[in-house]
Amino acid sequence: MKTIFQSELKVVNIGLESFQQALAASGCQAVQLDWRPPLALSEKDRRTLALHRGAIDKANKKAVDIVLNGKPFLVGLEKAVDVLPGMRKNSVFHAGPPIGWERMCGPMRGAVIGALLYEGLARTPEEAEGLASSGAVAFSPCHEHGAVGPMAGVISPSMPVYVVKNEEHGNHAYCTLNEGLGKVLRYGAYGPEVIERLRWMAEVLYPALARAVAKVGRVDLKNIIAQALNMGDEVHNRNRAATSLFYRALAPAIVRTCPQPERAAQVLEFINSNDHSFLNLSMPASKACLDAARGVKDSSLVVAMARNGTDFGVRLAGTGDRWFTGPAPVPDALFFPGFTKEDANPDIGDSAITETNGLGGFAIAASPAIVQFVGGTSKDALDYTLQMYEISAAENNVYRIPSLDFRGTPTGIDAVKVVEKGILPFIDTGVAHKKPGIGQVGAGVVSAPAEPFERAVAALARSLDRATRRPGRQRRPEGRPGRRPLGRGR
Amino acid sequence: MKTIFQSELKVVNIGLESFQQALAASGCQAVQLDWRPPLALSEKDRRTLALHRGAIDKANKKAVDIVLNGKPFLVGLEKAVDVLPGMRKNSVFHAGPPIGWERMCGPMRGAVIGALLYEGLARTPEEAEGLASSGAVAFSPCHEHGAVGPMAGVISPSMPVYVVKNEEHGNHAYCTLNEGLGKVLRYGAYGPEVIERLRWMAEVLYPALARAVAKVGRVDLKNIIAQALNMGDEVHNRNRAATSLFYRALAPAIVRTCPQPERAAQVLEFINSNDHSFLNLSMPASKACLDAARGVKDSSLVVAMARNGTDFGVRLAGTGDRWFTGPAPVPDALFFPGFTKEDANPDIGDSAITETNGLGGFAIAASPAIVQFVGGTSKDALDYTLQMYEISAAENNVYRIPSLDFRGTPTGIDAVKVVEKGILPFIDTGVAHKKPGIGQVGAGVVSAPAEPFERAVAALARSLDRATRRPGRQRRPEGRPGRRPLGRGR
Repeated sequence: MKTIFQSELKVVNIGLESFQQALAASGCQAVQLDWRPPLALSEKDRRTLALHRGAIDKANKKAVDIVLNGKPFLVGLEKAVDVLPGMRKNSVFHAGPPIGWERMCGPMRGAVIGALLYEGLARTPEEAEGLASSGAVAFSPCHEHGAVGPMAGVISPSMPVYVVKNEEHGNHAYCTLNEGLGKVLRYGAYGPEVIERLRWMAEVLYPALARAVAKVGRVDLKNIIAQALNMGDEVHNRNRAATSLFYRALAPAIVRTCPQPERAAQVLEFINSNDHSFLNLSMPASKACLDAARGVKDSSLVVAMARNGTDFGVRLAGTGDRWFTGPAPVPDALFFPGFTKEDANPDIGDSAITETNGLGGFAIAASPAIVQFVGGTSKDALDYTLQMYEISAAENNVYRIPSLDFRGTPTGIDAVKVVEKGILPFIDTGVAHKKPGIGQVGAGVVSAPAEPFERAVAALARSLDRATRRPGRQRRPEGRPGRRPLGRGR
Repeated sequence: MKTIFQSELKVVNIGLESFQQALAASGCQAVQLDWRPPLALSEKDRRTLALHRGAIDKANKKAVDIVLNGKPFLVGLEKAVDVLPGMRKNSVFHAGPPIGWERMCGPMRGAVIGALLYEGLARTPEEAEGLASSGAVAFSPCHEHGAVGPMAGVISPSMPVYVVKNEEHGNHAYCTLNEGLGKVLRYGAYGPEVIERLRWMAEVLYPALARAVAKVGRVDLKNIIAQALNMGDEVHNRNRAATSLFYRALAPAIVRTCPQPERAAQVLEFINSNDHSFLNLSMPASKACLDAARGVKDSSLVVAMARNGTDFGVRLAGTGDRWFTGPAPVPDALFFPGFTKEDANPDIGDSAITETNGLGGFAIAASPAIVQFVGGTSKDALDYTLQMYEISAAENNVYRIPSLDFRGTPTGIDAVKVVEKGILPFIDTGVAHKKPGIGQVGAGVVSAPAEPFERAVAALARSLDRATRRPGRQRRPEGRPGRRPLGRGR
C-alpha cells in the first residue's frame, strides 16, 4: 500500500472520457481505454447468437455479396403513380419507418401539406392539414414501395421519379428529383415558390431528363459513385463531383432531345445550380443494391436505416418486413445564421441508405471537407471511416478511398457487431427546422441510436432460437457452420 | 576499441540509400540520414548569397505575394496572330526555352510539321521539314510571348487561343485549346486526323466557346482550380474535376449562343470526352500569375520552368529575360502497352508552369491517384508535397490540400533553397515518343535537373555582387536587411 501512494499516480480510465480529460487537465498521466460497453441484450439472446454465429456469418457473407455485386443503372424517369408498386391516387409516401399524421414531426407535416397543395387535393395549408388528419390520405413508407426520399421524403402520385434498375438482380428502386437548396419541400417548406418549383420540375425538368436518358439508354450510377469517391464526395452530404459527372454524361443528350435550346439551357442551369442533384440518384442506387439482399435467412445485415423525424428505423436481411425503431436523435450540426440546435428537428430522411451501402458517413475519409464543416480535421474523417470497418461485413470491391490507398469502403452493417461492440453507425445528414413551413437550418453528422439495433438483434436471436427448437431439427454445438434443414435446400 | 566490436553494430548511413538497404536486408540495424549534398555553387557565390540573404528574402516575399494575389480569369478566345505579342505570319511558337530546328527533339519537330500543314504553308510532311529547316520559319518560345503550351506547345498564327487576364495586375496569358488524347499535335503527331481535328476546333469549338465566354462575361479560373484541388485534381496530370466544373459553368451559355443545337451537343461531347480540357486553362492561369512577378529585383523566385524536349529551362524573377538551362531528363512513367522507356523523349512542355505556381507535383497530395498510377501510395503523394514546402517561398492562400487539413499548397519555388538543400522540384508529366509523328506513350513523374538551378542562382549571385561593388554603394554585413539605393526608391 505504501509504495502505491508514494509512486506517481497513473490512471487508466474506462468509460466516460470526461474523467480522463479532467485528470489530464490537472497534469495527471491518464490514459483512456478505447472500449465501449456492448449494447443491451438479454443473456439468453447473447447465448443464442453465439450458438448460431457460424450461420449468421455465412448468411451475412451471402447477403453482402448480393449488395456488392449490385449493378444500379438509371434507366428512365416516370410519374410516381405509374411505377411505384402499391401507389394509389390518395397515397402519400414518406421517409423512415411507418408513421401516422398524429405522430409526424413538423417538417414531414409541412412536406405532406405541400404535396397535397401540389396535387391539387387542397387549396390552402389549412385544408391540407384537415385532409391529412382526416384519414383520407394513405400514408406509407417509401421503403415499403421500392422507393427512398431525402429528408421528409414525401412522394405523391404525380411527382416524377428516377427509375433505377439493379441489372444484376432485376429489381428497381425509385426516388424523386432533387429540388435544390433553401426553401424546399423535403425540408418541410410549402410556400408558393416551393409548389411552383415542383410544377416546373414536372413540366420542364422531368421530360427533358426522361428524353435524355432514353437517348443515352442508361446511366451507370455505380461508375459515377466510384469516380466521385476519388473526387471528394461521399455522395450523401457532398455530391459536387457526382453531380458534375452526371451532368457531363447527360448534357449533350439533353441538348439534342430538347425541342427548344432555351429549355435545355434552363435544365442545365437548374442542375448546375444544385450540387445535391446526384443525392437523389445515389440513394436509389443504394436502395436497389440493398433491396436485393432482403430476405436472406439468418442474416444480421442491415438492409435499411431510415428516419421519419420521430423514429429511427432499421430492417435486417434476416428479419423480413419488420421495422425495429427507437427515437431519432438530434444531429450535431453547423447551423445557418439565426438558427440553433433548439430549432433542429430530430434526424429525418431515407438518405442513411447511403451509409447502409458503404457510402456517406462510412466513406467520410474520402470527403474531409464535410468533417471540417463541423469543426473536425481530416484525421477525424479517417478515424470515423476506420471505426466503421469494425461493424461492417465487408470492404467494398468498387467504392474506394484514395487517402486509405484505395481501400474499399466499409460496406454492409452487421447489426450483431454493432450490438457486441457498442459502435453505432456514423451518418452524415441535413437538418430541418422542427416546425413545418420553414426548411433547412443546417447540416451535420449523427450517430444512429442504439435501440433499433438492440431490438433487431434480439428479434433475430429469437427467430434463430425458434427455428432450432422446431421438431425435426437438431441443435448444433457452438461455432459450427449453420443449420441445414433436412430434406430441402437453402 | 574492444567494446565497439563486442557491442551490436548500429549504422547511420549518409548518402547512397542502397548501403543502408543492403545492411537492413542482412538484419543489421541501419538508419538512413535524410540528407542530400547541396548543388554545385562556387564558394564565392555562396558567400555572396549569404551576404544578401535578407535582400533576397525580402524580394522573394514581394514576388510571391504578387503570385498569390493574382486573379486569373478566362475573358475570351481569339486567333493567336490577333493577340499574341510579337506573333508574325511566319511565327511558330514552341514550349520551353529557345531552340532551333536543328536541335529540336522528334515530337517538337512533328508538331512543327503538323502546324505548317495546318497553316497551309506546306502540302506534305517533307515540304514542311524543308520549310522548317530553311530558316523561313521564325521559331520562338511561347513563354516569351505571354503564352504557354503543353508538351510540344506549338502555336501557329491561325490557331485559336484562350485569353486569360490577371485582373489584379492587368497582364494577359494565352494557351491553345486541348485536343484530347491519343494522336494529337502536342505529342508530335501530324497525320490527317490530327490536322482535321485542329480544323474542327478552329471552325466549331472555338466560335462556340468564344460566344459562350462572351455571354457569361468571364470565368473565374482560380475558383475552379481551388475547388478541383478538393476534388482529387492537381490540375496538371489530372484535370477531371476542373474540366467538369468548367463544363458545368459554360454549358448553358454554349447552348444559348450556338445557332444549331447539334453543334452545341458536339462541343459538349468534345469537352466531355477529354478530362484534360482544363489543362490548357490551368496553365495560362498559372502563367498569368507568375508573369506578374517577373522583374522583382534580387528575387530568386522561379517564374518559369519549361522544357523543349531537349533542354530544361528556368527563369527567375530577379534575373530578367535570361533562361538558365540544362539537359531535360527522361521521366519515370507508366508506359502504354507496346512502349518502354527506350521510346520516351526527354521531358517536354510548358506545363511545369503549374508546379511553378504551387500546383501539379507540388499539390500531388491532393491527387493520390496520380502517384498510384506509377506504383506509389497515398503516403508517397503526401511526402512529395511535404518535401516541396522545403523549397517554397510560401503556402498558398487559396489552393489547399484536404488531406493536409486544408494546408495551402507549397507555392513559389525559391531557387536558392533548391540549391542549398539539394531538393529538386517534383513535376507531373506526360511522355511523348521520341520520334516525330507517333504521339503519347505514357505518363509519369520527373524531378527537375540540377543544372538550370545552379546556373540561375550563380547568375543571381553575380548580379548581387556586381550591384554591391558599384561606386556609391556600401557592402552590408551578413544577415542585415537588403540594400536600399541612396537617393531613389525601389
